[in-house]
Amino acid sequence: MAKRLLGKEVTAALNERIKADVAALEEKGVKPTLCIIRVGENESDISYERGATKRCETLGVACEKILLPADVSQDELLAAIDKVNKDDKVHGVLLFRPLPKHLDQSVIENALDPAKDVDCMTDGSMSGVFTGKNVGFPPCTPQACMEILDHYGIDCTGKKAVVVGRSLVVGKPAAMMLIKKNATVTICHTRTVDMPSVVREADIVIVAAGRAGVIDDTYLSAGQTVIDVGINVNAEGKLCGDVDFEKAEPVVDAITPVPGGVGSVTTSVLVGHVVEAAKRKFA
Amino acid sequence: MAKRLLGKEVTAALNERIKADVAALEEKGVKPTLCIIRVGENESDISYERGATKRCETLGVACEKILLPADVSQDELLAAIDKVNKDDKVHGVLLFRPLPKHLDQSVIENALDPAKDVDCMTDGSMSGVFTGKNVGFPPCTPQACMEILDHYGIDCTGKKAVVVGRSLVVGKPAAMMLIKKNATVTICHTRTVDMPSVVREADIVIVAAGRAGVIDDTYLSAGQTVIDVGINVNAEGKLCGDVDFEKAEPVVDAITPVPGGVGSVTTSVLVGHVVEAAKRKFA
Repeated sequence: MAKRLLGKEVTAALNERIKADVAALEEKGVKPTLCIIRVGENESDISYERGATKRCETLGVACEKILLPADVSQDELLAAIDKVNKDDKVHGVLLFRPLPKHLDQSVIENALDPAKDVDCMTDGSMSGVFTGKNVGFPPCTPQACMEILDHYGIDCTGKKAVVVGRSLVVGKPAAMMLIKKNATVTICHTRTVDMPSVVREADIVIVAAGRAGVIDDTYLSAGQTVIDVGINVNAEGKLCGDVDFEKAEPVVDAITPVPGGVGSVTTSVLVGHVVEAAKRKFA
Repeated sequence: MAKRLLGKEVTAALNERIKADVAALEEKGVKPTLCIIRVGENESDISYERGATKRCETLGVACEKILLPADVSQDELLAAIDKVNKDDKVHGVLLFRPLPKHLDQSVIENALDPAKDVDCMTDGSMSGVFTGKNVGFPPCTPQACMEILDHYGIDCTGKKAVVVGRSLVVGKPAAMMLIKKNATVTICHTRTVDMPSVVREADIVIVAAGRAGVIDDTYLSAGQTVIDVGINVNAEGKLCGDVDFEKAEPVVDAITPVPGGVGSVTTSVLVGHVVEAAKRKFA
């Protein structure tokens, strides 16, 4: 049976580091503060917001909210972003996306002060992920994958890593982060021919396919570490990943469960970015 | 014997398209204009400048120059960039890098108006390459590789592509461009274990290793297309690529020579970007 890479263990270690940083900032009279901007009433946004709010509370980070109606105008939303940009008490901003279609998402994303961009929304942060420069913050989900690898001491140097998925939110940034960790990285996607044979060759597999259980044992081989980014609801109404866990677990060396894997680490990574943004400001 | 993928054939086709665009702009009273900013007297900068100037002339693009001493101050250089940003007659700017060490390269790179960033110097252009959004322009060398693949009708969809090198100037952007073309892309680098076995699996190989002749026939296999980005001077003082051409040619299906391959396409790609920048402005 594979070793289970548990999000809660990673989160516990992360949270200790964050709490220590928060305490150090408090001594300087600084309260790290996240501002969540939500447009409309999307259910998954509200669910993520609930988790982030709770995690902020636990870790001693303040959490403000700006809630706007789904038909908010571009100018009103830009004014809200301008307000948080200018607010010295706010260190990090989370804006839920995708935005309603009448808004120009690219303009709005880039209106945010890059120093407060804790969820990699601006072109500046994105270029930081690509260039490896310390600009802004990487997206939280792929960083959560890296935190899991780090926590469990899985060295990437010289390893073959395969990323399944080429999205801007997970696949591409995960690939860049793995290259920075000296892995030889292959990026697979919907147009990849004979994906099972490609994925089987990997030492480390990060799956962000966005489809429930598509990666089964025919894609996997002994000795692999599998990080499953997927969060899906299966036919029985239960949460499941992009990896078929029942079939994968007997084959591979280590695997993240869903739920209880990557998803549970992401919120702490986000709060950690807010604290880091506050630290950078007072460095 | 492998088919030779000749830069001059690609350039000839590119130049025809550029000339047509220049003629169309001329009818609107617009003369596309490149401004080259050179700091100091680096020999390879001067050589590239000579090539770009000549190519501009041939294609009907104006070429201005701002030549600054190697000890130019940060403020003076920023003032020069501000001047070209505000100059409506200048459509594209090429600034040679690396800059002398007393200058803050990152600040200077990002001072340029992204719309005039024809050589992918700003974070905005870099993020465009990474995100696939149509922001700025990609770096000229990896785009020259794509132009060669396109010109010779080499379809990347579903193919295995390997990029040797993870630099920001070639390796990483080339990988992103190949993903956009639906290839399954692997990025190799100095920390890759058993690189020959990885490269042999590829259908398309782009080599930007930065070392003369390191890719020989032990890395290659039948049916491959090899694009050699390297420009080195060998022990006999002759120009050569990163691929050992003599050993590679009998093995692979198609290969770019050095000289006469990628390097000869790059200048036309640059001039093409200037013309495209002028077109975008008047679109």
